[in-house]
Amino acid sequence: MIRKTIDETVHNARGGEGSVVFSHILTKEELMGHANVYAKVTVKPHSSIGYHQHVGNTEPYYILSGKGIFTDNDGTRSEVGPGDVCVIKVGESHGLENNTDEDLVMIALIINEG
Amino acid sequence: MIRKTIDETVHNARGGEGSVVFSHILTKEELMGHANVYAKVTVKPHSSIGYHQHVGNTEPYYILSGKGIFTDNDGTRSEVGPGDVCVIKVGESHGLENNTDEDLVMIALIINEG
Repeated sequence: MIRKTIDETVHNARGGEGSVVFSHILTKEELMGHANVYAKVTVKPHSSIGYHQHVGNTEPYYILSGKGIFTDNDGTRSEVGPGDVCVIKVGESHGLENNTDEDLVMIALIINEG
Repeated sequence: MIRKTIDETVHNARGGEGSVVFSHILTKEELMGHANVYAKVTVKPHSSIGYHQHVGNTEPYYILSGKGIFTDNDGTRSEVGPGDVCVIKVGESHGLENNTDEDLVMIALIINEG
């Protein structure tokens, strides 16, 4: 079957600023208990996903376009762009900010602990 | 941690034509038994992923850029492009062809049966 994503706009995602659009590629049911979210995520200009912890799962960010600041589990803040994979381990924390005038687009997969 | 994908070029993928580049976002170990492959997949011009069955897992294709022909489980062939999600159920078959002069880029996730 060919279909489109299911889009959901979240304001102040994980305590962040502005708006983030989650374009869900699969539903939670289709993830069959292996993962909780699988989506293209658009962090709108001057918006962010607040720093938050992943208990019992992890969430790599794979950056498709735009530029952002990734905050890693140790608090390090680094500029990220297309092709970057931002990984944390189960139980660790992260956040992502878009301080630019362009969309920051990435793929997020919240995958459960093994 | 911020890193790049691990790229792997496959010729005649699943019995298809030409070359397909798998840019692995996570390793199989990092997928913790929930999934087998999570990658950005570039189907090069005039290349294809041959029609094949998914036993014990499924694999949605999420098209990022370019145009292709998706063959669904019932043999239907449809043109797909950016934003399209091509889903099959566990046990079903699919294939993807790029008959254009541009790359066809998508995200593939081979997720195990529930």
